This record gives sequence, C-alpha cells and structure tokens, in this order.
Amino acid sequence: MTMRFAVLGAGRIGRVHAKAIAATEGATLIAVADPVAAAAQSLAAEHGCSIRTIGEIEAAKDVDAVIICTPTDTHADLIERFARAGKGIFCEKPVDLNVQRVKDCLKTVKETGATLMVGFNRRFDPHFAALKATIDSGRIGDVEMVTITSRDPSPPPYEYISRSGGIFRDMTIHDFDVARWLLGEEVETVMASASVLVDPEIGKRGDFDSVNIILRTASGRQAIITNTRRAVYGYDQRIEVLGAKGMVAAENLREANIEVADASGYHKPPLLDFFMTRYTAAYAAEITAFIKAVTDKTVPPTTGEDGLKALALAEAALKSVAEGRAVRLSEITG
Amino acid sequence: MTMRFAVLGAGRIGRVHAKAIAATEGATLIAVADPVAAAAQSLAAEHGCSIRTIGEIEAAKDVDAVIICTPTDTHADLIERFARAGKGIFCEKPVDLNVQRVKDCLKTVKETGATLMVGFNRRFDPHFAALKATIDSGRIGDVEMVTITSRDPSPPPYEYISRSGGIFRDMTIHDFDVARWLLGEEVETVMASASVLVDPEIGKRGDFDSVNIILRTASGRQAIITNTRRAVYGYDQRIEVLGAKGMVAAENLREANIEVADASGYHKPPLLDFFMTRYTAAYAAEITAFIKAVTDKTVPPTTGEDGLKALALAEAALKSVAEGRAVRLSEITG
Amino acid sequence: MTMRFAVLGAGRIGRVHAKAIAATEGATLIAVADPVAAAAQSLAAEHGCSIRTIGEIEAAKDVDAVIICTPTDTHADLIERFARAGKGIFCEKPVDLNVQRVKDCLKTVKETGATLMVGFNRRFDPHFAALKATIDSGRIGDVEMVTITSRDPSPPPYEYISRSGGIFRDMTIHDFDVARWLLGEEVETVMASASVLVDPEIGKRGDFDSVNIILRTASGRQAIITNTRRAVYGYDQRIEVLGAKGMVAAENLREANIEVADASGYHKPPLLDFFMTRYTAAYAAEITAFIKAVTDKTVPPTTGEDGLKALALAEAALKSVAEGRAVRLSEITG
Amino acid sequence: MTMRFAVLGAGRIGRVHAKAIAATEGATLIAVADPVAAAAQSLAAEHGCSIRTIGEIEAAKDVDAVIICTPTDTHADLIERFARAGKGIFCEKPVDLNVQRVKDCLKTVKETGATLMVGFNRRFDPHFAALKATIDSGRIGDVEMVTITSRDPSPPPYEYISRSGGIFRDMTIHDFDVARWLLGEEVETVMASASVLVDPEIGKRGDFDSVNIILRTASGRQAIITNTRRAVYGYDQRIEVLGAKGMVAAENLREANIEVADASGYHKPPLLDFFMTRYTAAYAAEITAFIKAVTDKTVPPTTGEDGLKALALAEAALKSVAEGRAVRLSEITG
Repeated sequence: MTMRFAVLGAGRIGRVHAKAIAATEGATLIAVADPVAAAAQSLAAEHGCSIRTIGEIEAAKDVDAVIICTPTDTHADLIERFARAGKGIFCEKPVDLNVQRVKDCLKTVKETGATLMVGFNRRFDPHFAALKATIDSGRIGDVEMVTITSRDPSPPPYEYISRSGGIFRDMTIHDFDVARWLLGEEVETVMASASVLVDPEIGKRGDFDSVNIILRTASGRQAIITNTRRAVYGYDQRIEVLGAKGMVAAENLREANIEVADASGYHKPPLLDFFMTRYTAAYAAEITAFIKAVTDKTVPPTTGEDGLKALALAEAALKSVAEGRAVRLSEITG
Repeated sequence: MTMRFAVLGAGRIGRVHAKAIAATEGATLIAVADPVAAAAQSLAAEHGCSIRTIGEIEAAKDVDAVIICTPTDTHADLIERFARAGKGIFCEKPVDLNVQRVKDCLKTVKETGATLMVGFNRRFDPHFAALKATIDSGRIGDVEMVTITSRDPSPPPYEYISRSGGIFRDMTIHDFDVARWLLGEEVETVMASASVLVDPEIGKRGDFDSVNIILRTASGRQAIITNTRRAVYGYDQRIEVLGAKGMVAAENLREANIEVADASGYHKPPLLDFFMTRYTAAYAAEITAFIKAVTDKTVPPTTGEDGLKALALAEAALKSVAEGRAVRLSEITG
Repeated sequence: MTMRFAVLGAGRIGRVHAKAIAATEGATLIAVADPVAAAAQSLAAEHGCSIRTIGEIEAAKDVDAVIICTPTDTHADLIERFARAGKGIFCEKPVDLNVQRVKDCLKTVKETGATLMVGFNRRFDPHFAALKATIDSGRIGDVEMVTITSRDPSPPPYEYISRSGGIFRDMTIHDFDVARWLLGEEVETVMASASVLVDPEIGKRGDFDSVNIILRTASGRQAIITNTRRAVYGYDQRIEVLGAKGMVAAENLREANIEVADASGYHKPPLLDFFMTRYTAAYAAEITAFIKAVTDKTVPPTTGEDGLKALALAEAALKSVAEGRAVRLSEITG
Repeated sequence: MTMRFAVLGAGRIGRVHAKAIAATEGATLIAVADPVAAAAQSLAAEHGCSIRTIGEIEAAKDVDAVIICTPTDTHADLIERFARAGKGIFCEKPVDLNVQRVKDCLKTVKETGATLMVGFNRRFDPHFAALKATIDSGRIGDVEMVTITSRDPSPPPYEYISRSGGIFRDMTIHDFDVARWLLGEEVETVMASASVLVDPEIGKRGDFDSVNIILRTASGRQAIITNTRRAVYGYDQRIEVLGAKGMVAAENLREANIEVADASGYHKPPLLDFFMTRYTAAYAAEITAFIKAVTDKTVPPTTGEDGLKALALAEAALKSVAEGRAVRLSEITG
C-alpha cells in the first residue's frame, strides 16, 4: 500500500520533503499547495503532482497525509484542521512560537486521535542514530555529559531572523531536542549565555548569534550546547556523549573523503555546508518513520510533545539570558 | 527525453544497475532478460518492467540501450549483436578474457559506430573523482607514484574463482584501470608477485589470493597495486598519488561516522564491506555518464579500448608471475 | 651562567620539576627540602643534590631560585619569605585558596621586586602553544568562542579531595587560566553547573566531580569549560577556539601512534593518561621560561596576578553553583 | 655502572649519538675523534669530553665502547680494529658497501667475541615498536603483507649521492631491515623498479630517486617498499602490516598536534621533516639497547648479520633493476 501525500508550502524545506517522498518506496506525492503560484508550479512540475488549495487537500479522498512546510504562524491552525480531517500530519518544527498555543493544539490533536509527527530531522541522521544505538547498547555506561556543537556556516537573511522567534527557538531548538533524546532524563534547569559577535544587525533585530547553554537533569546529568550563526569552515554538527564507561562521538561529514599534503601541511575539504546536503539521509529516514507510524497507528518517534518540550527549553534559555540566572523548566511549563 | 533501457542478466550486478537506472532522472527500465526465469521475474516485479528474450530486446523499438550483465563469456558476442542492432551498449568488465577476442569485438563496434562503455565503476566514485580533479588542477604537480590498496573483505565462492579468469583479470583489472587513469601516461612494463596465503583451495584452482604489482611508464612514473582476497576489517579501497608538488589520498568509507572511546582505547566501526554499498554513488554516476555519451554521441569516459588495455595489463601480470621477470606490455598487445 | 635551584617539597610534583631542571641546560639542582626524610633522600639521591632545611635554603648563597611544591596552605608564606630573601620563585598553583591572602602575598612580592612565576603548565605545552600562535597570527580572526574539554582519567584519593579546595580551585583553575589566555579579554561573568555523578563520596566531602562553566567577557566572547573526574579512556585535554575567520583545535596525545583494524573495526590506543607523561614537554618549557624571566629580569609568562585571577574565577564558579545565577567577577575581586 | 663511550666521527650522525649518550642514564661520553679539528672541538665543547685520535681511543682504558660514525668506507676496518681492542662496537649502517667485505669483517668480529650492533634506528622508534608488539601479540594473526612508505623530504647533496652507494644501499637499506623484522621470515626473491623523476642530475650520477620493491618469502609473504627522495610535505615514514586476522598501521608524526579549519577546509601542519627530530626517541632507545647488550653480554637486537642481510637485499634490488627480473637472494649471498 502506498501512502499518498500532499505538501503544504513549496519553499525550501517543502522541496526537501517532496524529494524525500519521491525517493521513498511506499510513498507518492499527490498534491502541493502554496499561495505563491510559481513555487507551487515549479514543485508540481518537478514531481508530476497536482496543485490544489489547502481546502481542496483537506477534502481530498486521495490524500492520506500532509507535510506542513508553511510559515510557522500557520502551523498550529493547519495541524488542528488536518487532524480533524483525519489526515496523518507531519509538521516542521516548531508547532508554534507560543507555549500555550502549542499545548492547546496538542490537546486538539489528542482528541481527534490523529498521528502528528514533528520534524526533528537530526534524530534520523544515520550517524547520530548510530551514536544513540551505542548509548542504548550500554557500551558507554550511564550517560553523564552531552556536548552538542552546532554551528551554521553563515547567518540567514535579516528578514528570516526577524520572524524566526530568535536563535533559541529557531536553531537551538534542534539541539534541545537532541539533548533530551540523549540525556535519557528530562531537563530540570537551564542556564544560557548569549552574545552578538557575528553581525550587529542581528542584535538590532533583537536576536543573538553566539550562544552557549547548560542543561541539567534532576540526577545531575548535564548537556552543553554551543551555537553560532557563522562557522566559515562549513556546517559544523558534532555530538559527544560521555558515560561512566566511555565516550561516543559523531564527527562531521565532508563531500569528498580526500586529503592533500603539500609544503604547507595536510588539507581536507570543507564540511558539507548546507542542511539539505548534510541531512539528506535523515530527511528520507524521517519520512519512512512517519509512514510507518501512520500505517501501524503507533506513536511516531518525534511527537508534538517533543516539539512542546524543545520549545519550553528555548523559552527557559531566553529567560535565563534575560535574568542572568538558572531557570527551572517548570517555570515555563507550569 | 528519457533513455529506455534493457538489462541483460538479472544477477547481482544486473540488479545494481537496474536500481541505478530507477534512481536516475532521464532513464527508465523497459525490459529484463535472463534465462533463469525466477531471477528475471524478481527484477521485473521490483521495477515494473517486462521480461523479454535477448532476441526480442534486439528487435525492440522501445529500447535505446542495453546493460550487459551476463556471464563474461557472452559479453563479446552480445556487444557485437547489439552494436549491429544500433543500441547503446554498457557492458560490465571484462569484454572477454582473451585479448584477441576483445580486439575483434572492438573492431566490429567501431564499424557499426555504436557507443560502447565498459563498466569501470571506480572512476565514477565521487571521492576518487575528487582525487582525480585535484591532480588535474595541477595542485600536486606532475604525477610520480600511484599507490592503490584494494582488498576484498573475503574470497568469492570457489566456483566463481574457477571461472573468473583469475585474480588479475577479475579483481586487479579495476585497479589496472585506475592506475592508467591516474598515471596520465600508458604503462610500459609490469612486474607482479603472487601468493596463496588466504586459502590453499584457491591455489588448487590455479589462482592466487595475495598479489602485488609494480607498473612503470616510459618516463619512469610508477604505480603499485596491492590486492588480497581477505581483509577482515572490511572492503579496503584506498588510493594515494604522489606528485612533484604534493600528495593526494582518498580514504575509506564507513557506514557510521562515529568513534567510541573506552578503557581499551578509541574505536571506529568497520568499513563499508561490500562493493554495492561502497560504490552506490559510483554506479549512479556511471549510468548518468553513459546516458550523456549516448545522447551527445560522444566518446564515453570508459571505452572498449580501456577494457582492452586493462585486460592486457592483467595478461602481462600473469606472465610476469609465471616467468619471474618484468614484462613489456607490447609483448601482450603486439 | 647556570641557575642554581632548590626544590621545596619532594612529592610527586616536586619530582617532576627536579627532573625538568636536570634536563634543562643552564639549570642545576643544588638542594631539596622536605619534612619527610625518605622523600627528600630519594630525590636527593636521584639528582645528586644536598638535603637542607627551608631555613638553610633561605640563607644559602649558592641557591638562586626555589620551586615551591609544598602543600597549598604553605605557598603564600614561602613566597613571601623567599621574596624577601631575594630568590627567584616558581610556585605551583594555587598561591592560596583565599583571594585576600593571595592579594596580600602579591603585594609583598611586589615590594621586594622578586620574580614570581605561578605554575600554569598548560600554556607551555607545545601543542597548546602552537594553537595560541595560530590565534596570534590572525589566521582565525577575532576569537569568539573557546571550548576547553579537560577530564581526568580517575578521581584523586578522598583525602586529596578534602584538602584540595574543591574541583574549581584544584582542577578547573588550569582551565580558567587557559580560557583567560585564549579569550584575549578579561572575563566579566561566570555561570557554572556542578554535579556528583562519578562517586557519591566526593559529594559527601563537599565537592563535585562533573562541572560545566560558561565564561563571558565584556564584548560577549564566551568560553565553555567541561570537567569531569573520570574519563575511562584517558587524560582528555582538548582545546578548540572559534574565530571570525576560522577555528583552531588541539587534539589529544597517545603514547603510540598506531591503529589496529580487525573484524570489529578500527582501534587506537588510549590517551596518555597522566599529567606527568602528557605534559612532560610543558614542564621543561616552563622551567626554561622561568630561568629566562629571572635572568632577564622580565615579567614571567604566568604571574602571581594570573594566579589570583584564576582563583577568583574559581570562587565565582562556586558562588554561581550555590546561588544558581551568573556571577560577576567584580563581586569576587571587589 | 656507567658505560664510557667514544664517538668516532663528529659529523651530523655523530652529534646525534653524542646527544643520545648525554641523555641516557648509565652512559657517559669520554672522547671524540675526527680528522676535522673544528668538528671534533665543537662536539667536545658541547659535551665536555676530550678530543683524541682513533689510536688513542683504541688504547684507552677509560673507554668501554665506540660509536662508529665515520665515512662508510672506514667502517669495516674500524669494526675489526675495535673488536680486537676489546671494545663494544656500535656502527652506523652500512658495515660496508661490499657484501664479501662485510662477511669477512663479521668473521673477525665473531673470532674476537666482541659485541657489534648495527644502527637500524627504526626498530627502536616507539611507534614502530608498538606495531611490532601488536604483531607479536598475535592480534592480527599471521603476517601476510607489509607495506612500507619511506620518503625523504628532499634529496641529499649531489656529493653525498655519489658516495652513498646508491638509494638502495643508502636509504632503502633501513626499509629492508624493517621488512625483514616484520615479515617474520627471510626474504627469498626481490623485484625492484627504479626511476629518476625528482632530479636528472641524480640519474647522471648513476643513482635513482624513485623506487618500488616487492620482497617475497618462501611461504609467499610479501613486502612492498616505496621510496622517493622528495616528498614536499615532510619526512613520510609509514608502515602497514596485514595479517590473517587484522591490520596494524603506524602513522606519521607532526610537531604540533593541531588542526585549523577555514573557508578552504581543514589543515594540519606538515610532518616532522628530519630524521633527527622524527627519530629522537629511537636514537635514545637504540643506545640503551646497546648498553644493555654489552653489559649483559647478550646478542644486540640489530646485529652485523642484520647489516649483511639488508645489504644483500640492496644488491638484489640493484640486480633486479639492471636485469628486469626477480632476483633470488641466494644469487647474492651465495
């Protein structure tokens, strides 16, 4: 049986998911919706699917599931709408920038019994998955420290910054999810430090570009996250986990696995420098996991609840920066 | 315009190419032929193509090109037949185990004007291609020494050994082609040393399992090839090229890019241990290059002549082992 | 001219310095003092020097400089005493566990005009020195983020823990100094998180074994320090510095630079697992730098002021843990 | 008890050994001899030893052992002379460039019962020693293939080339010894290929600068040696050994263990580029092993016989190049 998809939003991330659907056995792309006609046409032409309105997709009998790639402020409404329409829902992070709105939305989803998966792609990266499997095997013993280095090659456009909800909600949110996934215990307190070092304009727009966060669980496990909006050497995505019996680390990936030696030393090419090339395999595995959850009617590996918790960590980090203190997560989630 | 393919031979390598065609834009699989009905049915079912006889494919108007994956002793005949039928031809190495037969076959192909590409997949591996691009950029200066380490994880079945033509024609042939590609100059003399260290049964069947070869060009450039049928740590595929101004090396690939540290040290997972996983990207790029050559009516990157020369190097290596001396390639090619 | 040394304290670190003096051109060991006769005798026998009391060394005309390796609570007194005696003074960190006592001591030293160098050996490690030289060359641009991973192979004895002043003053103090050295700007605020994960007995003695610290300068530069008392894979000493134009990292060292590959993967030996083997070259370079400073009457590379500032950072970290907030360094130093 | 040494020849390698003696417990340098007065004076001044003639050293009661670092054509005579004088003898490779002369010399040594150790420093490198220990532990199973990459940063002066005996006797001789050491079985046949690629003047002086050699033992084990007189990226010294159960490799060393990442990629410093810095630890371990053999009256780890066999392999390689064939070692050794 093939799962029939519609993609809502034909922008950059919508195209990534359309491509992943095309490459996945048991999945087919039926329709795309986007208010920008050119974007919808381009994606439809590339994948041979129809262009429809969101209302048409909602009513369509030939669509089993939707991938929500529209602007963030539409996510919660669309999730509720398609949950009521009985479709499987895959939504890009975040569900909303407001914690209460997310809670309300998840309540609606729960009532409808719909399957909602939130797009935390890193969990599906084969290298990070291998790291997690190593932890789960017991090989490094109880987890004690998680270190996540996550650096973008260069800042996004200013207008993106302005409506992103800020670096913690936009960028660190992925790392908050990874930290929760690897700590094996919920976070209790958050300490964060934030600076503007890359571009003063980012500061003028009320955001930061260089942040460090310490997360702590009830038993004292800790995670450190270090983020910056500019690493000139590429898209730096590393994880290291220390346990009582050892350590496991996932290294960066480069396009070509070559090394040149000359009179000035040894040289390797820069890193894969874009999330779409770095996480190609992850996007494919993510869709496969979603199809399986919808088909088997099981809980997907990354739920709305995960989306809520990562968002709450972002809120706590912001509060920590503002107030110069450790913030308990319960102050955010109530 | 889409190129319509038939695959002749539905065995292991036939399936690899069918999969590559399915994943390639501008390519579609129309038919498969195989005397073993179950093999043909399985491949046809997986890719939704028809099952036909070789004669039917020869006569078919809806087939533009064939991929020859049948046993080696049928290659030359099939190449001639499909060259006369006006199809584009992609043939797995080797064209034949007999140098004279290859020459005759290539003569026929030339007369028909057909496009013939021989499957030397390594040239299409993105890492080896990046290494070659580095050489071509002039960054390491004139090439002086090429070192190719090519080791299989474990020996093939005995029956395969018996009809493979021996390790030089079956396994080293890929490395001979890589050496020619990278040396930038034709090989003049061959010295080879061969042993049976892995399994005495391989020796009883008249073959070797552990060989080293030194190739030398007219200007004195040299290549070393080291092969074995057993590397317990995986499929070891490395290239290193020394030039007057530097060195470039391509390293092995592993499935997961992780490292575990514990009381006994630091540990990385074994290598990708099978040619199909190691060279997935290469098989796709190879088909794309073939489509381009047929479409543009240009010389493909790996020609019948390349197949002939690699085979001649294998013959020279065998002669060198038998006679304990450096063999000039002209002794083989006349 | 040869500088004539006396070593005060013939324990573990005293022996390290005695060895470094023996291996250094232009330095000779004249005397050792230690209330434990056996310790003094053993060191004196090994290096062919005399055993004297501290008073005798103070009065000796054939001693130019002392290396203070006695228990921490004697450091400040000895520094003052030998400053007044006109000797060059090299003192192991820390000067004292009390900030005010350190201030008073440094005042005395200043009045005497004596040369005082405090033992922050990491700055003299050739690899870390090469990292610093890379920063200073401008190659990575302005420093933005410093990441220091510093993990001991296993906890020290309980009795050492009890009188060490705690992990921040005993272990992190080195990393605080390294952070100051690399940030290129004084630290303004400190956030720290501390747990007991390795051994509950450490907690019972009022200390922590697993800590993370974020340091922040006035301009927003940040440093992260991660410490643990147990890394089963060895003595983990890494530094990474991100700048506007690139990154520079110093990796760990192992005794043998070999790798074994087998059916379970690729394996490297554990790290050098002891500060004496890891920092052998650093201890030698440190003594050489001290001799140069005393001889040339110049400011040594690691001063009493550096000792004071690193201690203040440790105090601030402790306060941050106790109060769950970012602590300004000025709260400590007044 | 301290062993009292005289160094014969105060050139580059003489100074290396003098330094190693100075740094070794249980060894002291008494005298140096060199017809070039300035050289002798410089070394004597540096180490505080006397300058003597060879005759004086021969007769001296306060000299237990000599280190022969004079020109190659004097080695055999000096060995015989000091063997008769009852001194322990450490001689730099080679004993002589003529196989028969070496045989005669070793016969004399045997008659006197003197201890003769030949300077094959690589066996004493801690990394190569760790590799050998891994083989001896059985961890990689029976040895099958040895790969030695040995490349000088740049060619020696022309005049050195002219009297060196050629690349096989001067440079490869070290690798022949390493191959014998690691193969665990004597070599039976040698195939070699030699070119002039680096500098035509080297060819005019009758030598080669780029060579590859395949060694084969009776049971079929093989070693490959690849040499060149120019690797612009440093002194490239690598060994890799494949066994039935795994592989072990020793990697190169660099002065600083750092890595810089920037927009053009990741960069490591060049290799240690001189045998004196690369093999500092090896020279020290070599002297220690010599002292032990003289003191304990045991066979040293690298004997005159090892020197003879490595020279015979060099002769065989030369003959293989000249005659374009595999040469049996028995053709050389008789």
